[in-house]
This record gives sequence, structure tokens and C-alpha cells, in this order.
Amino acid sequence: MADICPQDYIDFAHALADASGEAIRRHFRTPVPVEDKADASPVTVADREAESAMRAMIAERYPSHGIVGEEYGNRGGKGADVWVLDPIDGTRAFIAGKPIFGTLIALLRDGRPVLGIIDQPVLRERWIGAAGTASRFCGDPIRTRSCAGIDRAILNTTSPDLFHGADREAFRRLSPRVRSTLYGGDCYAYGLLAAGHIDLVVEAGLKTYDYCALVPVVEGAGGCISDWEGNALRAGSDGRVIAAGDRRVHAVALELLSGGTN
Amino acid sequence: MADICPQDYIDFAHALADASGEAIRRHFRTPVPVEDKADASPVTVADREAESAMRAMIAERYPSHGIVGEEYGNRGGKGADVWVLDPIDGTRAFIAGKPIFGTLIALLRDGRPVLGIIDQPVLRERWIGAAGTASRFCGDPIRTRSCAGIDRAILNTTSPDLFHGADREAFRRLSPRVRSTLYGGDCYAYGLLAAGHIDLVVEAGLKTYDYCALVPVVEGAGGCISDWEGNALRAGSDGRVIAAGDRRVHAVALELLSGGTN
Repeated sequence: MADICPQDYIDFAHALADASGEAIRRHFRTPVPVEDKADASPVTVADREAESAMRAMIAERYPSHGIVGEEYGNRGGKGADVWVLDPIDGTRAFIAGKPIFGTLIALLRDGRPVLGIIDQPVLRERWIGAAGTASRFCGDPIRTRSCAGIDRAILNTTSPDLFHGADREAFRRLSPRVRSTLYGGDCYAYGLLAAGHIDLVVEAGLKTYDYCALVPVVEGAGGCISDWEGNALRAGSDGRVIAAGDRRVHAVALELLSGGTN
Repeated sequence: MADICPQDYIDFAHALADASGEAIRRHFRTPVPVEDKADASPVTVADREAESAMRAMIAERYPSHGIVGEEYGNRGGKGADVWVLDPIDGTRAFIAGKPIFGTLIALLRDGRPVLGIIDQPVLRERWIGAAGTASRFCGDPIRTRSCAGIDRAILNTTSPDLFHGADREAFRRLSPRVRSTLYGGDCYAYGLLAAGHIDLVVEAGLKTYDYCALVPVVEGAGGCISDWEGNALRAGSDGRVIAAGDRRVHAVALELLSGGTN
């Protein structure tokens, strides 16, 4: 991330998260109707109101910018800048009343994430990462922690049901090698990794709006995040994501996922 | 639960949870050393300080009562009353910085749970159930929700790794039949069930101190909780636990777990 993210964009991203959070808090732990989308993922009025609020703000402030949103799709832009929005990453957790879902806001410049927010609106916890700055949690700079070996690592993934076929086999090669595997958490787990509480997060089937915001947060805290081949994540990556706080753990986990004998 | 739980015990249980929470909050998201116990489950200074604080209070106030604690074992008592303590149910989640673990406090009378607390000290969320009263969440009465069919149910379990052998097969019969399966949460998921946000929780391998407190909370909210044969949970049950907000879902899930063709 050689670019420096302009402070105006950082301030504006905070304002987007504030607006989204206000919409979401109104519906948390209320009996909202749940619809299943074409891909069988659930959506609620909270997802829609939160994304609508953010899209309206972007259209007013940066009418030339593109938008990619989970609920309302793509709006083409005129320049290099595209906002990527997932109003509720972890809608299932939101519906179940678990306060560890999150709002994801990313800014892509020429397809690369240069700004990311993970916001937990119920707990009022917010991670922000921006190119050229240290990532922050609730205003304080954060760092991932070092982890000497894969056998010492705490691994998190949202659900075993994320993995199918060869991906499932790959995860089964990795999971028994770590110290402990935890489930649940969606984007919140990447925030905990950035803040030095978790060593490794491995998932599959993520969409562009699920992972773009994670990249600046994890990288700005000193961690590694990539696809399962070790490539940088960009809009349209294959949705297999690995993040590690320590690059030694990242390297060994990539080997194990690929079937190497490390 | 024909007994009425004395108000003195309820007040005292709140005081225990207050003391435990104070100990735990001091260590949350700090780099505490983690030891692995003989059963490979982790323990930290937070678990130990929280349980010590509660044991000291019980010894002073009710010296004749028995105590069963996760970290410091059993202390025999002289009467019918035994306190069952799990200072941190979900130590792995605690270590990873996820604020959805909980402190579990139960009072057994002649082996039956008549009082239970699920306390989340970081979020300051507390569920209490006591024989003869409606369960409460942060002071407000709660009810489980109705759920007409298993295909509408949100199921939660802490980890797929709870299930081995025949239990794993049983869980695999059940999980594809529900609307959605979520992972993670430990005791917190039973609290969400009691408050009407989740329909079904199924786990195995739980210890006496993991489930005794759940019983009064779930039952006092109108839900069902039992072992996988439908028997009431008591100290020394086999650790396979199923809780449902609606007894129709409880019945169908029991059938599916047992291999029935419902």
C-alpha cells in the first residue's frame, strides 16, 4: 500500500459507519422479518436501511465515485475510486442476536483496497485501516501479535460449512495443526486478529464486499492477508481468504492449505 | 421446578456474578498466559481468580453448602444445597477476545438446578432463572419464541468438534434440516435462546458445571432443555444437551438425533 489515503476519505468513512450503525442498532434483537436471497443468504430491513443510508451519503458527497454494495449492487463511477459496502457482514449472527457481526466499508483505488472499516455498531467497536497509517481500534493504534509456530496459533473461521470439496480437505489439513480452532465471528474475527488476539483466520466463499475492508485493517496492523495462493486480494478475487498476524504462520498455513508437507 | 428459590439465594447469586465479572474484566484482551489442563481445555488466571472470589464468598456466607467448580473441584456440603460454578464458560472465546463467553452459576437442591445465572461480564449482560419465577435478561422478563417447524429453526452449536462418532452422525442428521446453523457462543447461545433469538442449541461433551445454570434460565423462559434422550439434566448427566424455545422443535430434534425418521 504505497498510496496515502486522504484524510477527507477517512473522515467520510467514519461518517458512513456512524450512519450505518444508527440504522442497524434500531433493529438489533427486534423480530425483523428475514428474507432469503437467491444465494440463500439472509437479508433484513437492517441490511437494506444501513446500505441505503451509506449510498445516499456517497452519492451526495462523491457523485463520481463508484459503489459496490451487497444489497443494492454496483453503481458505475467515473474515476479510480469505488466504495465497497457490506452493511451487515454476519447477517445470520445479527438475526440470532450475537453482537459480533460488522459493517464493512472499503475504498478501492484502481481496484486495490486503500481504506477499510470494520464496525460493530452494538458494541460501538470500530477498526480502521488506511494506506500509509497504522490501523486503529476505537482510536488506538493496534498491532498483530507474533506467533512462533503453527502449533501455537489460534485459528478462527466462521463456519465449517464455508468449505466444500477440495477446500474442505484443505481446511482439514490445517485445523488439526493449530493450537485451537474457534468458530463464528465473520469480519469481527479479522478485527481481533488485527488487534493481536487471534493468529489466523481462514475462510472461503467470501465476496468482494466481504473482504475488501479487511485488507487495510489487517495490513495496517502488521498482518498478512491474501488469497489461498498468497496473492493480494482485489475486487473479484476467488473468495478464499487467509489472514495471519505473523508472516511465518501465514507461510506455513498456505503450505498446508495447498497440500504441501510443511 | 416445583420449588421456589429463596430470594436470599437469588440476591447472593447476583453478588457472586458481580464479583466474578470484576475479576474477569481485569484480564479481558490482556495477554494472559494460557495453560492446558489434563483434558486439554485451557485455563487462565481470569478463570482462577473469578472462581476463587466466588468460592470465598460461598464459604463465608453459606459454610454448609457444597461447591462444584470447574477450576478448584468439589467441596462437600452438609445439606441439600450445592453451588455449581464455571467462572468462564468459553475460555477459548475469552482468550480470543470475543465477548460472548459467560460465567455460569447454579444452585442445585437435591441435585436439581433451581437457580441459574449466565453472566457476560464485558457486555454486562446477565440472564437469571430461578424456580418459581420468570427468567430475566438484564432485569426484564424474557420468553423463548415459538417456532412452528424444524425447517424454520435457527440452530446454534459452539463447534463441530464437540461431536465424535455417533454423536457426529446424529448432528449431521439434524443440521441439514434446520433453516440455518450457527457456530460459536458457548453458554451465551442458551441465553439468546431464552430471550427468543435462537430456536435450538445442541451440544455434546458438556460437564456438570457447563449446563446446570442453563436449566433454570431456559425453563423459566418457557423453553425445553434436556439430554439427547429427553431426560431432565442433573449433576452427572452424560453431557449431551439440547435446548429448544418451542417444544415442537425439541421433540422433532430429539427424533432426528436418535435416528428416527421424523
